[in-house]
Amino acid sequence: MTQPYHRIFNFSAGPCTLPVTVLEQARDDLMNYRGTGMSVMEMSHRSKPFETILAQAQSGLKELLSIPDDYDILFLQGGASQQFTMIPLDFLNPGKSADYVVTGTWGSKAVESAKLLAPVDVVYNGKPEGYRTAPDWSMLNFNKDAAYAHFTSNETIQGVEFHKDPTCSIPVICDMSSDILSRKVDVSKYSLIYAGAQKNMGPAGVTAVILKKDMLSKLNQNLAPTLDYKVQADNNSMYNTPPCWSIYLCSLVYQNLLVHEGVEGANKRNNAKANLLYNVIDSCGGFYKGHADQKSRSIMNVTFTLPSEELTIEFVKQCTADGMDGLKGHRSVGGCRASLYNAFPLEGCQKLADAMVDFAKKKG
Amino acid sequence: MTQPYHRIFNFSAGPCTLPVTVLEQARDDLMNYRGTGMSVMEMSHRSKPFETILAQAQSGLKELLSIPDDYDILFLQGGASQQFTMIPLDFLNPGKSADYVVTGTWGSKAVESAKLLAPVDVVYNGKPEGYRTAPDWSMLNFNKDAAYAHFTSNETIQGVEFHKDPTCSIPVICDMSSDILSRKVDVSKYSLIYAGAQKNMGPAGVTAVILKKDMLSKLNQNLAPTLDYKVQADNNSMYNTPPCWSIYLCSLVYQNLLVHEGVEGANKRNNAKANLLYNVIDSCGGFYKGHADQKSRSIMNVTFTLPSEELTIEFVKQCTADGMDGLKGHRSVGGCRASLYNAFPLEGCQKLADAMVDFAKKKG
Repeated sequence: MTQPYHRIFNFSAGPCTLPVTVLEQARDDLMNYRGTGMSVMEMSHRSKPFETILAQAQSGLKELLSIPDDYDILFLQGGASQQFTMIPLDFLNPGKSADYVVTGTWGSKAVESAKLLAPVDVVYNGKPEGYRTAPDWSMLNFNKDAAYAHFTSNETIQGVEFHKDPTCSIPVICDMSSDILSRKVDVSKYSLIYAGAQKNMGPAGVTAVILKKDMLSKLNQNLAPTLDYKVQADNNSMYNTPPCWSIYLCSLVYQNLLVHEGVEGANKRNNAKANLLYNVIDSCGGFYKGHADQKSRSIMNVTFTLPSEELTIEFVKQCTADGMDGLKGHRSVGGCRASLYNAFPLEGCQKLADAMVDFAKKKG
Repeated sequence: MTQPYHRIFNFSAGPCTLPVTVLEQARDDLMNYRGTGMSVMEMSHRSKPFETILAQAQSGLKELLSIPDDYDILFLQGGASQQFTMIPLDFLNPGKSADYVVTGTWGSKAVESAKLLAPVDVVYNGKPEGYRTAPDWSMLNFNKDAAYAHFTSNETIQGVEFHKDPTCSIPVICDMSSDILSRKVDVSKYSLIYAGAQKNMGPAGVTAVILKKDMLSKLNQNLAPTLDYKVQADNNSMYNTPPCWSIYLCSLVYQNLLVHEGVEGANKRNNAKANLLYNVIDSCGGFYKGHADQKSRSIMNVTFTLPSEELTIEFVKQCTADGMDGLKGHRSVGGCRASLYNAFPLEGCQKLADAMVDFAKKKG
C-alpha cells in the first residue's frame, strides 16, 4: 500500500503509534461524522451519535477482553495517575489498609498517592534490585484483611511484565495502562482494571476502567462526584462532559483490533516483534544487556543498555536519523527502550534489530 | 466558499461548533503533523513538537486575554466539575469558609461539591426566582475572612450572564467555561479563572486554568498530585500525560481567534448574533418569552420559551429538519436554547431568527 504521507517508526513509550487505518478513518470523518454535518469534536455528548460511539467503545472493549456482565466499563479523565488517588480514596474505608506489589516506577507512584490517604503495605518491592522482576504470585503474602491488592501488569520504564493473571484471595486492582489488549487476560480474576488509553487504545486524555459491580458497595461515602466510581457508573461515564474525541478514537481502535484477530492476534504479533529484539540482545556477545530478568521481560517495552553512555547516544542518534524515533531509555534505567505497542509494525522491529546487529558488529 | 462536506448549524450547548478552518487544519495535519511523520495523537508529550504545541496554547490564551505575567496557565483534565472539587480541596484551609454566588445550575453544582469538603456561604442564590438574574457586584456582601468568592460568569442552562468583571475584596474564582474568550475581561480582577474547553476553546477533555501565582502559597498540604494546583503548575501541566490532542485543538482555536481581531472581534460578532435573536424575542408580541432578565441576558446562550410545550416540540422539530440542531432547552428551564459560541456563524442566527418570526406569524 502506498502512503501519501511521511510516517516514521515511532518507538515512543506513550502516547505512541496508532493504527494507520484508524487515523485515516478519523481524518476522513473529521469534518462531517457519518452525515451528521458535524465533527465528533463538535457533537453534544448527549446526542444519539455520541451515545452510539460510547456504546461501541464499551462493547468493543467488552468483546475484546471477554468482560463478564457483572462489570462496568467506564471512560474517565485524569490518566492512571488520577486512578492512583481514586482507588484508595474510594475503597480504603477507615481502619483498612491496602497491599501494593511494586515492580517499577508506576507501582511506586501508586503507593505514594495511596499513602497520602491511608495505610499501605508494600508486599513486594523490586526497588533494591533495580526493578527487574515480576514475582510469582505464589510467593506473595497478602494481608487477608486488606481492602485490595494493587499491581502494575507492565512497567513501561523498566520493561518488567507479569505474564500471568493474579491468584489472590483479596480483590485485585491492576494498572494495565501499558499492556491492556496486548494479550488475553481473565478479567474475572480482577476487581478493577484501569488503563490510560495512550498506549494500546487511543490518544491521551481518557482512562478505561473495568470495574466489578460488587466493588460499588464497598465505597466510602460523600466522595467528590468526578472521583466517585459509583457516580461515574450510575451516569455511564457522563456525569459531566466526557473526553468525546478520545473515546471515539478508542472505539475505532477496538473495532480495528476485532477485525485483526482480537487480543490473540495482537499477542501473536507482539511476541513476534519483541522476540526479534530480545534475540538480538541475547546473541550479540553481551554488547546489549536486557534490563529485565528473562522471565519478566515485557513484550511491550524492550529495555536494554549498551556498553557505554557514548555508544548509547551514538546509537540513538543514528536510529533517529534513520526514521526510528523515541528509543532513548528513561533516565532512571538508562540505555534504550523500544516500545512495541499493538499498533507498532513488525517492519519497524526488523529495522531496529538489523540496526542493532550492525551497530554491535561495528562497535563491539 | 464551497464546502466539500455537509455541515449543519449546530446550536448545541457544548461540545459545540468549532471554527471550520481549525477543523480543516486538524484534518490536514492528522496523519503527519508538520513533517514529524506522526499524528499529534501519537506524539510523546515530552517531545519537542508537543512542547511547542503546549507553549503555543499558553501564549495564545495569554495574548487573547492579556493575562499578566504573575499568572500560571494550566491545561488540566476532569472538566469544570473537577474544578468544583479541586478549588475547595486546595484552597479551603481548616477553619475557613468560602462565598458562592449562585446564578444557575452550574453555580449550584459548584456549591454541592464544595459543601462535601468545607463550610460554604451562598451570598447570592437566584434559585427562588428561577435563576434569571446576575446581581450587581455592589449589592453582594462577602465575608471578609472567606478564602475566596466563587461565581459562574455565564450560566449555560439559564442563559444568565455577568457583563462586568467582579469588584470584590477577597480572591475571586470564576467558572468561565461558557463565555471565556467571548469578550474582554480584566484578568487582574480574578485570582483563578477556569473553563472547560468545549464551548469557545476546543473539544471536550481539557480545562484551562488561569491561576494567580500568589494563590499557590495558600494551598492545603499533602494533596493528591493530579488535584494539586502547585504540582500541576510546577510541572507545567505535565505531571502526567496531558490531553495532548485537545490542547493542540485549543492552540489552533487561539491562533484562529488572534487573526480574527481577538476577543474584541469575537465580542462584536457575538453581540450581533445574540441581538438578532433577542430582537425577535422582544418583537413578536409576547409569543416568545426570554428566560433571563434583560440586563442579565447571555450573549452565548439565548434561552426562551414558546406559548406551549406542543409548539416548542413542533418548532424544534421543524428547525432540526431544516439543518438547525440542538435547540431544545434544558428540561429545568424548558423551551428553547440557542447556543451561539464564538465559532457559531451569523448566518445560522439569521436563519433561526427568520424561522422564529415565521413560526410566530403562523402560530401566534
